[in-house]
Amino acid sequence: MNVAIIGASGYTGLELIKILITHPKFNISYIANSTGEENVQELHPSLKDVLNIEVSKVNAKEVSEVADLAFLALPHKTSMSFAKQLLELNVKVVDLSADYRLELDTYEEHYCSHEDKEHIKDSVYGLPEYYKNSIKTSKLVANPGCYPTASLLALLPFVDYIEEGTPIFIDAKSGVSGAGKKLSEISHFVNLNDNCHAYNPFKHRHMPEIEEKVKLLKDKEFQINFVPHLLPVTRGMLVSIFATLKDEVNVEDILEDSYIDSEFVRVRNTPVNLKSVAGTNFCDVYVARNKKALFINSSIDNLLRGASSQAVVNANIMSGYDENLGIPKIAYVP
Amino acid sequence: MNVAIIGASGYTGLELIKILITHPKFNISYIANSTGEENVQELHPSLKDVLNIEVSKVNAKEVSEVADLAFLALPHKTSMSFAKQLLELNVKVVDLSADYRLELDTYEEHYCSHEDKEHIKDSVYGLPEYYKNSIKTSKLVANPGCYPTASLLALLPFVDYIEEGTPIFIDAKSGVSGAGKKLSEISHFVNLNDNCHAYNPFKHRHMPEIEEKVKLLKDKEFQINFVPHLLPVTRGMLVSIFATLKDEVNVEDILEDSYIDSEFVRVRNTPVNLKSVAGTNFCDVYVARNKKALFINSSIDNLLRGASSQAVVNANIMSGYDENLGIPKIAYVP
Amino acid sequence: MNVAIIGASGYTGLELIKILITHPKFNISYIANSTGEENVQELHPSLKDVLNIEVSKVNAKEVSEVADLAFLALPHKTSMSFAKQLLELNVKVVDLSADYRLELDTYEEHYCSHEDKEHIKDSVYGLPEYYKNSIKTSKLVANPGCYPTASLLALLPFVDYIEEGTPIFIDAKSGVSGAGKKLSEISHFVNLNDNCHAYNPFKHRHMPEIEEKVKLLKDKEFQINFVPHLLPVTRGMLVSIFATLKDEVNVEDILEDSYIDSEFVRVRNTPVNLKSVAGTNFCDVYVARNKKALFINSSIDNLLRGASSQAVVNANIMSGYDENLGIPKIAYVP
Amino acid sequence: MNVAIIGASGYTGLELIKILITHPKFNISYIANSTGEENVQELHPSLKDVLNIEVSKVNAKEVSEVADLAFLALPHKTSMSFAKQLLELNVKVVDLSADYRLELDTYEEHYCSHEDKEHIKDSVYGLPEYYKNSIKTSKLVANPGCYPTASLLALLPFVDYIEEGTPIFIDAKSGVSGAGKKLSEISHFVNLNDNCHAYNPFKHRHMPEIEEKVKLLKDKEFQINFVPHLLPVTRGMLVSIFATLKDEVNVEDILEDSYIDSEFVRVRNTPVNLKSVAGTNFCDVYVARNKKALFINSSIDNLLRGASSQAVVNANIMSGYDENLGIPKIAYVP
Repeated sequence: MNVAIIGASGYTGLELIKILITHPKFNISYIANSTGEENVQELHPSLKDVLNIEVSKVNAKEVSEVADLAFLALPHKTSMSFAKQLLELNVKVVDLSADYRLELDTYEEHYCSHEDKEHIKDSVYGLPEYYKNSIKTSKLVANPGCYPTASLLALLPFVDYIEEGTPIFIDAKSGVSGAGKKLSEISHFVNLNDNCHAYNPFKHRHMPEIEEKVKLLKDKEFQINFVPHLLPVTRGMLVSIFATLKDEVNVEDILEDSYIDSEFVRVRNTPVNLKSVAGTNFCDVYVARNKKALFINSSIDNLLRGASSQAVVNANIMSGYDENLGIPKIAYVP
Repeated sequence: MNVAIIGASGYTGLELIKILITHPKFNISYIANSTGEENVQELHPSLKDVLNIEVSKVNAKEVSEVADLAFLALPHKTSMSFAKQLLELNVKVVDLSADYRLELDTYEEHYCSHEDKEHIKDSVYGLPEYYKNSIKTSKLVANPGCYPTASLLALLPFVDYIEEGTPIFIDAKSGVSGAGKKLSEISHFVNLNDNCHAYNPFKHRHMPEIEEKVKLLKDKEFQINFVPHLLPVTRGMLVSIFATLKDEVNVEDILEDSYIDSEFVRVRNTPVNLKSVAGTNFCDVYVARNKKALFINSSIDNLLRGASSQAVVNANIMSGYDENLGIPKIAYVP
Repeated sequence: MNVAIIGASGYTGLELIKILITHPKFNISYIANSTGEENVQELHPSLKDVLNIEVSKVNAKEVSEVADLAFLALPHKTSMSFAKQLLELNVKVVDLSADYRLELDTYEEHYCSHEDKEHIKDSVYGLPEYYKNSIKTSKLVANPGCYPTASLLALLPFVDYIEEGTPIFIDAKSGVSGAGKKLSEISHFVNLNDNCHAYNPFKHRHMPEIEEKVKLLKDKEFQINFVPHLLPVTRGMLVSIFATLKDEVNVEDILEDSYIDSEFVRVRNTPVNLKSVAGTNFCDVYVARNKKALFINSSIDNLLRGASSQAVVNANIMSGYDENLGIPKIAYVP
Repeated sequence: MNVAIIGASGYTGLELIKILITHPKFNISYIANSTGEENVQELHPSLKDVLNIEVSKVNAKEVSEVADLAFLALPHKTSMSFAKQLLELNVKVVDLSADYRLELDTYEEHYCSHEDKEHIKDSVYGLPEYYKNSIKTSKLVANPGCYPTASLLALLPFVDYIEEGTPIFIDAKSGVSGAGKKLSEISHFVNLNDNCHAYNPFKHRHMPEIEEKVKLLKDKEFQINFVPHLLPVTRGMLVSIFATLKDEVNVEDILEDSYIDSEFVRVRNTPVNLKSVAGTNFCDVYVARNKKALFINSSIDNLLRGASSQAVVNANIMSGYDENLGIPKIAYVP
């Protein structure tokens, strides 16, 4: 099955390429970015002697002629105008941007006016552990954000046990690859090395994404208080969630039971870390309790489970393949 | 005024030496560790051509003959037996261990049986912003732990505004120098580089220290839920505190007012970071609110404000000097 | 074909496991270390839900019953006594230690008395680009050291052009995983972070290995002056070689011609770096000239091309498979 | 004595400020950059509550009214036009750019046409160990580059012992703060973390600076072959020099004798490292020999001995003060 990667210049584009090179079913038939006219080896020198394919200047018509499914690793807003064209040309889409992740009104409140109101209502939120059946038949899957992926996988098993009306706090820490390839003050080596700091406390756009999904999946309204931090590491994301339980329940059992059949969620009995999941699609989770105080702890590779490998899992499901087909499980350890 | 440094081999011992070398009033008359028979330049090669003094094998009698005040940078338990001797020989003590930080019963519950019950009851907790008057006349100051220093300076101004009965969550992140010079799995470069993880969630010994001081200072009992994390950096500590307010108060004003006269607490209007305080005695603090959800954020240099420079501030106060005498304010930036 | 991994606890043991899990022909039938009685997931927590196999306490007889080839990732000296037993039981061996890398007299001069004089004389040096034909029929391949691999691949094409009698200088830089899993002062995070330094200048045991192979392959005696450095990174090795040419030859062409048919040596036209080869078996090389002054620059992943992936390439060749079978080519980028 | 800092925005500007804040004789009377209209605490947030002074938009006339000496931390070319004005207004200048470091013809060959031919011929090269007497009476000192400082201090003692006609190789490694505050691909965290690579091999502008000073000071012409590398650290520079000796001389004695009276050069008996000099004006040096092969090894803090603290040493000497006045000696260890 031929697939296209649109937005091949960035980190998530590169990760898509890396996974699809060895995927047993998907064949990369088209790679594009906004400029084209380059070999993928010039764009990503680590691919020298590994993959030899021209990067095209993106064109929806061309995509529809050579691919059945397209991964869009594009900026917000750019993505929806392009997804719209592809869907009208009958190309399935896994969109890694935020453009189809939210209900229309939530999106417009936190991002901008939406340009593809037709398709957003049918998009499926691509968190496979919770939306697998809908993904199977969807033509448009909105790949979750990295913070929501790690946060929701940790939080959802406990939503029913948390005291209603109490705030949920999420202290999230991310490697700087999440800020992308574009040069910026925060990703200047001198500014981040030996350093760590919060940013956009209570204001990050992933906060409403988490709140909305908790409400849709669990029919509970919680105030999610989300504070992201930047870590002096390239890849990896660590989430620490704090909440107040109704009762002193057995939190280990609740967690274990929730993911007993989930191939890509590993329940740990010690706090999780970044390295054990770096390079993989795993989400590691751990939980602890102090009377009614709850600590849930999860880690993912922000570029893989938080973006590209989860996108390929979604594509696997949309295509009727096993969800684990070609999905990386072996960590960048040591 | 002659001072002694006992426990010169470790990181906090080195930081004490570094500060005291240029201190305008204190003169290092004695440096000791458990073995002795070495020049300080062999112990700390960075001091070559900077300080030339023999390291003694620790002996209380000798200390009392050459120094009026001693800094103890010793392990817990070792410290109290030595402090006891010094106090009986009329040497003032600033103790950097945990041995005199807690009420006797709290100590014995979380550490071990106490061997100096006579002096522990008169020790003063060396957090200058809150105990300055008692420190002035004390002969035994217990220097606070690094996590409690950063946590209490952030939390104390808000204790009266937090809804009683709600849990307070502290997500603390520390550089690995806090784990000391001794080799260990967690401080192996390969294990920590590109990594980050929690440890001892809800079980760290600094948790009761914070709870006790909140109670003693504010007469309020809160359940402090403390989760420390390890960062891939050498020095620095970042604390994120989450709590529930009674009302939607002006948190910026509360913070500003609390520290308007504090030379070493800087109120910031953006989230704090490690680098701006590394190398200094400053504690930077920042606060944000989302309805009744509270986020307080502080940073210190764990080896300085969290140990050695705070110890010298305490010694300054005990000796009748200005508290800022010889205290580092210029950060290791960039 | 069933293979055994002996010495599964260390970093190279883990890398062997990671490669062999997805290898299309080799099946891991036996994993051992010195203690046994543990599941591989306890030994390497990143393998949870990835590989489920018991770790045995090493036993040569058992190996011979379940495997046709064994990878030995053991310390020097331990390795030869065990290799000897395996060879006598007709198990092929790829030895990652230094025990069979050198001529007997060179070995005994730089290491210790050799305990397997019978097999050392038939061992083949496992640098595939230069010894492929001998490896094909060998029962005992000595996997090269990491520094010699990167140094020889860079140096060998130019040996005939270097002025005889002039010294060759190698400034090599390694990530600290090369120092192994054992705790040590140099790999303590605080000591290495933000730091870099040479160690054992002109005295490293890889120096005679390079000298000997240059002599055996090119029949030229050069004084190799080798200075290794430690970098604050986990994996990767960068080699800078400096030498004096006889004439102002076209060094780019010489390099290009040398490796035109080598799948795992990539000639670059800009200086090489660590990240483009991390996670792969590639050796990247680059060359520059200033009149007769020569600079050759190579990079490898010290744990893969410098150990485990090169070992699997050797095993592929010994088993009659394509050398690239199951060998990683996709880098840990970004 | 009042001094001005021109170019206060960059890293070397900040380091000048940090040193001068506590300098016992120099008083910062003027700080400027190209825009002005800002408090220095906004420009450098780590200086909050430490230094309170307005940053001016740079103006030579103003400088001459409030300062007797100016430090210029400006880009090449910008610096000479401004230095010229200051010198004509009778302000002494320590210039941290390359504009006055070289002989006129060397400068114009490697940089651009020179705009201040009058003063360049009287400028003194500010390497205090070798030019102290000339600095004393100079009105214009050209502060050496960071690479030349570390390279020349290591190399000069051995120039007379090196075989004439043989190449000298310098493998230099620098922290990325040397590339400045401006955003660039090489200083993007993701590109440098876990990485290391050479850049501009045999082409860096510091190569002719080293060659010229060797010739001027020792009257010997050597081909200096300089290859700089970038390290994943913020500050620090490590230089490894390789050369061929005429005879098997006692290199340790030569080095020891050369710097016996130099307060800021420390001869070490083990390889040098970055951390022991970070934060100080020290240059640590070490030497080893393998027959006639020579290895000289030096380390400095690139922003201090390689720029700002050396500039203040020069200003001390120009002003008739002790050269060590207010110069940092206590390293950022651990």
